[in-house]
Amino acid sequence: MTDQNIADLCNQMAQRAKLASRSLATVGRAAKDRWLNHAADALLSQTTAIVDANALDVAGAQQAGLTAAMIDRLRLTPARIQSAAEGLRQVTNLPDPIGRIREGSLRPNGLEVQKVSVPLGVIFFLYESRPNVTIDAAALCVKSGNAVILRGGKEAIHSNSILHRILSDSLRAVDLPADAVQLVKTLDRDAVGYFLKLDDCIDLAIPRGGESLIRRVAAEARMPVLKHYLGNCHVYVDRAADLAMAERIVVNAKCQRPGVCNAMESLLVHTEIAQSFLPRIGAVLSEKGVELRGCADTCRALKQAKPATESDYAAEYCDLILSIKVMPNLDAAIAHIAQYGSKHSDAIVTSDWNAARRFTQAVDSSAVLVNASTRFNDGFELGLGAEIGISTDKFHARGPCGLEELTSYKYVVLGNGQVRE
Amino acid sequence: MTDQNIADLCNQMAQRAKLASRSLATVGRAAKDRWLNHAADALLSQTTAIVDANALDVAGAQQAGLTAAMIDRLRLTPARIQSAAEGLRQVTNLPDPIGRIREGSLRPNGLEVQKVSVPLGVIFFLYESRPNVTIDAAALCVKSGNAVILRGGKEAIHSNSILHRILSDSLRAVDLPADAVQLVKTLDRDAVGYFLKLDDCIDLAIPRGGESLIRRVAAEARMPVLKHYLGNCHVYVDRAADLAMAERIVVNAKCQRPGVCNAMESLLVHTEIAQSFLPRIGAVLSEKGVELRGCADTCRALKQAKPATESDYAAEYCDLILSIKVMPNLDAAIAHIAQYGSKHSDAIVTSDWNAARRFTQAVDSSAVLVNASTRFNDGFELGLGAEIGISTDKFHARGPCGLEELTSYKYVVLGNGQVRE
Repeated sequence: MTDQNIADLCNQMAQRAKLASRSLATVGRAAKDRWLNHAADALLSQTTAIVDANALDVAGAQQAGLTAAMIDRLRLTPARIQSAAEGLRQVTNLPDPIGRIREGSLRPNGLEVQKVSVPLGVIFFLYESRPNVTIDAAALCVKSGNAVILRGGKEAIHSNSILHRILSDSLRAVDLPADAVQLVKTLDRDAVGYFLKLDDCIDLAIPRGGESLIRRVAAEARMPVLKHYLGNCHVYVDRAADLAMAERIVVNAKCQRPGVCNAMESLLVHTEIAQSFLPRIGAVLSEKGVELRGCADTCRALKQAKPATESDYAAEYCDLILSIKVMPNLDAAIAHIAQYGSKHSDAIVTSDWNAARRFTQAVDSSAVLVNASTRFNDGFELGLGAEIGISTDKFHARGPCGLEELTSYKYVVLGNGQVRE
Repeated sequence: MTDQNIADLCNQMAQRAKLASRSLATVGRAAKDRWLNHAADALLSQTTAIVDANALDVAGAQQAGLTAAMIDRLRLTPARIQSAAEGLRQVTNLPDPIGRIREGSLRPNGLEVQKVSVPLGVIFFLYESRPNVTIDAAALCVKSGNAVILRGGKEAIHSNSILHRILSDSLRAVDLPADAVQLVKTLDRDAVGYFLKLDDCIDLAIPRGGESLIRRVAAEARMPVLKHYLGNCHVYVDRAADLAMAERIVVNAKCQRPGVCNAMESLLVHTEIAQSFLPRIGAVLSEKGVELRGCADTCRALKQAKPATESDYAAEYCDLILSIKVMPNLDAAIAHIAQYGSKHSDAIVTSDWNAARRFTQAVDSSAVLVNASTRFNDGFELGLGAEIGISTDKFHARGPCGLEELTSYKYVVLGNGQVRE
C-alpha cells in the first residue's frame, strides 16, 4: 500500500469506530452481555477453525526462529480457547459501568446536578503476540461502551483475524455495530503512527508490550495514553516484623511469578534484624535459585550474595534476581523507595502501628501494602473484576485498570427554567 | 541568559518543586488553611505595595499600546486585592481532598483494600495577563497538596513577583515548604519549552489562555495536560418547550456574559414552534444588540437575520452574535450538536419527559442541561466550590475542575501476612 492508502485506511477505520462508539454509548447492559455470551459460544463452536488458523502463526513463528517461550505465548489450544470463552462469560457478571450516577446534589437554586459515567469513546489498543488479549481487550472495551481498534503483533495475524471475525460477527448477530471492534490487518508499521495522530476520533491509546513500543506511543500520541513503564517493587522488612511472615511474603513476592510487574525486585531490611533475617531468607531464596546482590552489610551476612551496584537498585529484573540493602531506619527505606522505585507496588512487613501508618502515608506508589505480598497489586486481587492493564501514571487511572477506568463522566443538570443572575 | 542557563534554571525549579511536593503531600488541612489565612492577611496589609508594583505593569502596558480591556484585566485595585484575599479565605472552607477514602473493600482473603486520594505532585500552570490568577491557582494547587510552578504573562511580571513573594513568605511563616509555590521570572519564552519536557518532575500542565498557547502546550508537553479548547454551546428549543422559559434561558445563555466559554453560540429551534418562537426571541435579542445569522427558514421568519454559513455553526463567537437553525425533530438537533458542537455545554428546553431523557443520554458534552441556562456549567454553580478551569477532554477530568480534579489516588492494602497462591 502507498502511504496515502494507509493514511486513508486508518482514517476510515477511526471514523467508523467513532460512529460505532456513538451508538454503543447508549446501549444497555443486556445487549452487551448478549454479545459476550454469543461470542463465547462462537469461540467454542469454532475451536477447530481457530486452532487451524493459529497453527499458521505458530509455523511462521517457528520458521522465523522465535524462542520457545514466545511460541508458547502465541499458541491457542482448545483448553486456552475454552478459558477465553469463560473469560467472556465472567465479564457478563461485572456490573455495567455506564450510566452510574457517581455523585449528585441539589443546588440552592433548585438545579439537580448529576455526575454520570459515560464511555471514553474510541480506544486504540496495541499489543504484542498473545492472541487471547484480542478477546480480553475487546470484551472490556465494549462492556464499558467503547469502540476499540485492535493492533496486535504480526506473528499472530491469522489467529487475530479469525478471533476478530468471530467478535464482529457476534456484534452483528445481536444487533450491535460491528465496527465497535475492528482489527488493523495491515502489517505496515506506519499505520500505528497514523492512528496516533487521529485525536479527533480516538480518545485513548493503550499500548501493552515492551518498553520501546510504549515509549514510541507516549512520544507520538496526540491523545491521552494509558501506559505502564517499570515495576521496580520493594519489600521493606521493618525491625518490628514477624520474621516468619516476612519470609513468606518475600518468597511469594519474588518467586511466585518473577516475570511480572508486581514481583519484588528489591528487598530492604532494617539493620536491627539484618543479622537474624538475612541468613534465614538468603538460604530459602538461594535454594529457590534466586541470585542475590547486596550492599556491603548484606554481603557480610550472606556469603552467596554478590556486591550490588547503583543500577541494581534501579533495575526491574523480571527474573530470579534480587537486590538487597540494609537500612538504618524506616525513613531511610522510604527515601530509598522514593529515589529508586517506580511508584508501582511497595510493601512493608511490620507489627509496629506507627511504622505502618508512616509507610502507607509517605510512600507514593500505585499500591502501598502492609503485611501482604506486592503480587496483590492486580485488578482481580483488588476486586476490580478484570483488568486491561496497570497504569504507572497518576492521571485519570493509577494501578490496575478495569471497566470503571475505561469511562469518563458528564454532568447532567436538570432544572425548571433556572438562569444565572 | 544562555540556553544552558535557562535549561538549568528550569530543571532546578522543577527539582525543588518535586521535593516540596513530597513533603506537602502528607501535610494536613490545618497547616494548609493556616497558609491561606496568612496569605490573605498579608495581601491586605501589603495592598499599597501591590498596587505600586501593579502600576509599573499598567504603565508598561499603556506604553506597549495594549487595549483598554487588556489593561483593565491587568489592573489590581484595593477592591480587587480584597476580593482575592476573600477568595483565599473561601478556599479554607473547602474540605481537604487529600486522604479521602474513595472506595474500600474487604477481600475474601482478609485483605482490606482502600483507594485513597493523593496529590498529583507538581503542576505547571501557564496563564496570561490577569495577576489575580496567580493567587487563585496557588491556593487551589496547595490546598490539594500539589506544588505549583507559575508562569504568568510578561505584562504582569511586577504584579506577579510581589504576589508570589507574599505567597511564598506566607508558606515559610507557617512552616510549609516555600518551593511549593514558585514563579518563573525569566521572560524568555524558551523556558516554557524546557518545563514541558520535564515529565520526571512535573505531573500535569495546565495552560489557561488563548488557543495558540493551549495548542502549543498540548503539542509539546510530555506530561498530561488539562486543557480547554472551544466552547460552542447550543440551546435546543423543543416543540414541547414552555416558550416563556425558553426566552429567559436563551437570553441568559447568550447575553448574560457573552465572552465566556459556557455562553450559547448556536440556537436550534424545532420546526413546529419556529413560527411562534423565532419572531419573539428575535425581537428580544435584536433589542439587546445580538447579531443573528440563520438558516433559510430562520431568515424567512426573521427579517433582521443574515444567512448563516457552515462556519457560523462551528464558530465560538465569544461575542453578541448568534447562529440559528430550524430543526425537523429532536434527533436532528442531537446530530447537529454531535457534528458542530465542542462537547462543552448543551441545553434542551422542553416539557416532554421522553425528549429530555433522550437528549441527556445522547448528547455527549461535559454538561448536558434540561430547562436551564448553559451558563451553569461552572465550578461554583455545580457545587465544586472553586474552579481551576474547565476541561474539554474526557480523560481524568471533564468540565469544571476543582480541588478533587487536582488529585490522584493510591491503593492502600492492609493485611496480616497474605501471599498469592
